[in-house]
Order: sequence, then C-alpha cells, then structure tokens
Amino acid sequence: MKTILTATLVLCLAASAASGQELANFSRQSTTSPEIANDSVTFRISADYATVVTLQTNWLSGQTPMQKKGGVWSVTLPLPEPEIYTYNFVVDGVPVNDASNYMVQRDGTRYLNMLFVPGERSANYYEAGQRGTVTSVWYDSKILGINRRMTVYTPYGYEKNKKQKYPVLYLLHGAGGDEEAWISMGRTAQILDNLIQQGKAVPMIVVMPNGNPGQQAAQTLGLPNSQTNFRDPSMANAYVRSLCEEIVPFIESNFRVIAKPASRAIAGLSMGGGHTITASQLYPSMFDYICPLSMGAAPTDESRAQLRALKKDGYKLYFLACGDADFLFDRAKQLDRTLTEEGLEHTFFVSKNGHEWRNWRLYLNTFAPLLFK
Amino acid sequence: MKTILTATLVLCLAASAASGQELANFSRQSTTSPEIANDSVTFRISADYATVVTLQTNWLSGQTPMQKKGGVWSVTLPLPEPEIYTYNFVVDGVPVNDASNYMVQRDGTRYLNMLFVPGERSANYYEAGQRGTVTSVWYDSKILGINRRMTVYTPYGYEKNKKQKYPVLYLLHGAGGDEEAWISMGRTAQILDNLIQQGKAVPMIVVMPNGNPGQQAAQTLGLPNSQTNFRDPSMANAYVRSLCEEIVPFIESNFRVIAKPASRAIAGLSMGGGHTITASQLYPSMFDYICPLSMGAAPTDESRAQLRALKKDGYKLYFLACGDADFLFDRAKQLDRTLTEEGLEHTFFVSKNGHEWRNWRLYLNTFAPLLFK
Repeated sequence: MKTILTATLVLCLAASAASGQELANFSRQSTTSPEIANDSVTFRISADYATVVTLQTNWLSGQTPMQKKGGVWSVTLPLPEPEIYTYNFVVDGVPVNDASNYMVQRDGTRYLNMLFVPGERSANYYEAGQRGTVTSVWYDSKILGINRRMTVYTPYGYEKNKKQKYPVLYLLHGAGGDEEAWISMGRTAQILDNLIQQGKAVPMIVVMPNGNPGQQAAQTLGLPNSQTNFRDPSMANAYVRSLCEEIVPFIESNFRVIAKPASRAIAGLSMGGGHTITASQLYPSMFDYICPLSMGAAPTDESRAQLRALKKDGYKLYFLACGDADFLFDRAKQLDRTLTEEGLEHTFFVSKNGHEWRNWRLYLNTFAPLLFK
Repeated sequence: MKTILTATLVLCLAASAASGQELANFSRQSTTSPEIANDSVTFRISADYATVVTLQTNWLSGQTPMQKKGGVWSVTLPLPEPEIYTYNFVVDGVPVNDASNYMVQRDGTRYLNMLFVPGERSANYYEAGQRGTVTSVWYDSKILGINRRMTVYTPYGYEKNKKQKYPVLYLLHGAGGDEEAWISMGRTAQILDNLIQQGKAVPMIVVMPNGNPGQQAAQTLGLPNSQTNFRDPSMANAYVRSLCEEIVPFIESNFRVIAKPASRAIAGLSMGGGHTITASQLYPSMFDYICPLSMGAAPTDESRAQLRALKKDGYKLYFLACGDADFLFDRAKQLDRTLTEEGLEHTFFVSKNGHEWRNWRLYLNTFAPLLFK
C-alpha cells in the first residue's frame, strides 16, 4: 500500500500549504460565532480596525451595538425561542456575513447567516435519519416561451420502491423568491423527511417551481428572461396556466405519481398564495388540497361564483394560514369570511408574527400531516 | 377574472411594502459591481464610513487599494483573460462580499463572489440551451458507518429516453471540498451540457460523491460525523473502497447505467486525484478511463506492480493533468515518468497556473470529450 501512503502524505502536505487556493479553508476561523450557552447566544467578529460594529437580526428591530475587546467585537443576547433566524454584522456601515458560521441562506439576491435555535418547534428543521432526494430539473414552457428549472423532492424510499406511486404537493414561493426558496429557507426536505419518518405525513413528492413567469432559473448566467410581455391581456395568469397545464403533466409523466385530484395538493406563500387561490379557482377539479399561506383576497362576484363552483366540484382540505402581525392579515380575514359566507369548509390557521419564513416553515409543518388522508 | 386581478393588486402592494421581510430584496442594489467594459472591470462598494477599503482577488496577489468618491469606493482593473474568478472586498480589515453581485460560490466554509469573464475558454461555463438534471441523493455506507449525500448529473434527455443507458464519470473533489464542489465551482453541469449539445462529448451521467470519509454531507446541521477511527489500519482506503464497492453499485442499480468498465470513468482533483490513482490501482478492472488532476505519486515497488497489473488488465485512457505552477507539479511529473517507465500509454496534459479551479474546469472541459469513445 505504499503508493497510497505516499498519496496520503502528499495530501497532508497539501493541507498545510498556504499556497493552495482551495486549501485556505483549513486555517481560518479562530472566532466562535454564534455560540449558544443555556438561554443566551453570543455573536463575535474579529475586526480590530473597525470603528463601529453592530448586529442586525430578523428578530430584533434596528441594529444592536457590539463591544470590542482585544480586536474582537461581541454581543450576548437572550436566546430567542426555538426557530431559524437570520443575521449579519454591520462593520462601519457595511453589511458583513459572519465568517465563523458557514450556515448561510440566499434570500433572492441577499446572503444572510442562519441561527438555529433547537427546541420542539424547530426539531423538524434539522436533518432526519431517513432522507429524500432533491432534484433540479428543467421543463419546457410553451406558454411562457422559455425552458425553466424546478426543484423536486422525492421521499426516502422512492428509489427502492420502484412500483410505488406517490401523491404530489405543489409548493409555491413568494415574490422575491425562486425555485430554491422552499428547499433552502423553507427547510422542505428536512420537514418532510422528519414528518414522514415519524409517520405523521404520508410519503409524498413535493414540486417547487419558479413562480416568476419570465425567469428561467435562479442564480444563473447566460439565461435571458422571457421576451414575453406578461402585461398583455392574453397572458393573464400565464404562470398559473403553465403550472396546471405544463408542470403538472411534466411531473406526472416523469415521476411515479398518482395522477388524481385526491393526490394533488397546492400550497403557496404570499405571491404563491395568490397563485394557489387562482389555480384552485380556475382549475377547480385539479387539486383536492388547497393551502394559501400569508395571502388572501377581497371577494368579487366572480370569485364568489368560482368558490361556489369549487365547492360543488368538491375538495378535501382548504387550509388558509396567516400571521396576526402580517400586513396581509386583513386580506386573509376577508378570504376567511368569504369562504364562510359561501359555505366552503376550511381551516383558518392564525399564528403569531408576520410575513416571514418562521411562519411558512410552521405552516408546512402543520398542514403537511393533513394531506392525502 | 376579478379575483385574480385583486390577487395581483395585493402582490403589487406586497412588492412595494418596506415591511415585508422577504421583499426587502426588491429595493437594494443601487451600485453596479462588477462592471465589465471593453478590456477593464470595475468593482464598487458603498461604504461611506469606512476608513480603508481594498479588493482581494484570486488572480492578483495581495490587496488592491480602492478609491472613495461620494461614499462609493471603486477600482478599475485590466480585465483578466476569460475564466471565472473570485473576489471579495476588505472593509477596515474585515472581508466583505459584494452585495451588488448575487453570483456567490461556497468553497468549503468560505463564500466568495464570482467574476465571469466571457470568451472562448469560458464559453462552456455558461448555461447551455439543453440542460441536464442535478440530483442530491443519499446512500448508506456500511464501510464508513454513515448515510451520505452525493450529487448526480443526468444529461438532457435522460427523462425522455427511458430505454437509453448511459456511461458514468465518477468525479472526485479535493481536500476542503465536498459533494457540491464540482457542481458549483467546477461548473460540471454547464460544461457537460455544452459539450453534449455541441456533439463533442457523449451523453453521460456524472457522479460527484463526498470524499471526506467521516462526513455525511456538506453544510447540514444535526448530522454528526462518523465515529469510525479512520487512522485504524483496517480502515485504510475506506473511502475508495466505499466508492468502488458501495457508490458504483448504488448508481448502477438506481440509474440507467451501462455497467461495464468501458463505460466507467474516474477523475479527481488534488485529494480526489489521489483517490483516482488509488482506485485505479486497487480495482484495476473497474474503470477504463482514469484521470488524476493536479496530483501525482512517487513510485514504489508496490505501485509499479499495481501499474503493471493495470496495464495487463487494460484501459482506454490515462489522462494525467497538472499546472506548471502547481505545488504538486513535481509529483505529477514523477507519476508521468513512472507511467512511461512501466509502459502505460497516457496523456500528460500540462497547463499554466497552479492548484486552482480555473485549471480543474479546463481539465474537465478537455478530457470529457475523450471519454467513452
């Protein structure tokens, strides 16, 4: 085995060589951040030459001052309740990521560090023991005039149980998001893996398309946006039509799917909640599970007629969810009232907090166990 | 369609609301950076309160000073030759990403901005018209004692041509990398998509496992490293054994693969080049295409015997590549000499530059057309 030993030795040399570009990772972080201890969390950044350093988070408003000691700025805060949070530092007025924390999420064009606070509420956001497969796949949209990417989650066992067919949840992101939003910020794979492993949700496929009609895919180069004019009246609801007439058939011909309304669910947050409402009303026979999140709608004569048609056609679950601090809470309450007035059985799930990912993860974790049962 | 119009209106409100957390993306970047104009590139960062701001790149040594004007620091540099480069700013001593550039790569635990310089050499690093599918899938390793993630690229047409079987390239990363290194920094999907669309490479599957034997997956939480002691002599070459005895069979039973040596290639950079050399010598009948990149080996009696056995067993391509400024170039030259002395036909592809991704992308772009022909 001498050849192999030699190769190993070379690797050790490589790991200690300062010149190797890729290898610079080995000798970086000496600062620990964030550090959770009992009921507090400490953030630290090495910035000996900075004049003012603050912390910016998504659970505290404004900027939190940090104190300098020996070149390292730090601040200790009470630990927020179990969830995933985001933060960054601000060094002399410039937003800076925490180099000591490799857990980073992309929200649109912004990169923010993640703080995981463990506990009952966030338990399903961590990796489960049995994990599904996540696929990035492209489909051609004639309606939108472009080739487009979507993310597909197939549950643990999909590869082995080659004869099993699965129900499908179509899970839509909000404005500013893309086909990677639910899988990264939404922790969809982890939530479904955990719920399925615990026997709380049935094994299902989750399809996360890109809901920006002109965009081929997130974060790519050389992929121009669609030239289609989506303001043209003939393009009304173009994305929802592509979803129901192109994405659903694509999934049903390329994955092992139960192609029936009782095995199709649609859910979406914010803009995706609008897509969910629209799809359920324009295609009342397609989805038996309908879950608009952090969204609502003012009633019109036409929407009332569509809701009556949906009721007549039948469905199994209408799960409307919104935070009581959401700027769209009144809209959600309007939809709740309209559903009641038109006699559509539904759940109105009201949570704390606003228009944010901690709610969307909570909602997915709450409604996924209700699907396909 | 009034319901839908109403939903659209709500979305427009949402997009303009400053309070919506997810929507903050809409109104951010006012600074353009980087900006390529003819033969120069300008980097800019808004940092009114900073004292010293510099630029750090992977094509210039040291830090490049930037000049302040109206709160914006900038520097204009000669455009480097076509390739993908990385950079960041340093604001009062603290590394900072370019918030105006959403193209970011993760290299181990570091996040760096990417600069794409278009040209003939980098043409295949951009998205092709016909794109394959990228999958993150988990396999159980009994040898390593953990469940592990790998990235699999299937070429355009894989979903449609349900009877076609494909050859497989096993593509291994270096120390500090993981199962996402080749697909992100290596631009593997883009390079293969382009080469296949141009008819230069045959459609193939590319498997990119995680080569750190104790690690389940990159960038996850709640997944402890393996408890196995890899220094135990009985664990020698544990990763290479898992690759050949577990990953190859997993791929061959879960994807439509031609399960023959003539349809198996192995390539790897740095540590992965060591894995490539080891695998080809311990399993001489498994791979007919062998491509160690930026790696080499000093000859021993045992390695010479293994190479003679490999020669006797037969193979179709031995493609050794290294940069003439690589700190392992002497090692690569040693392997080149040993291969010559033992009478193994091979290619020694020597490029400019060192131990870095611009070489590894170039090598993949160069050897992929030689595979399976």
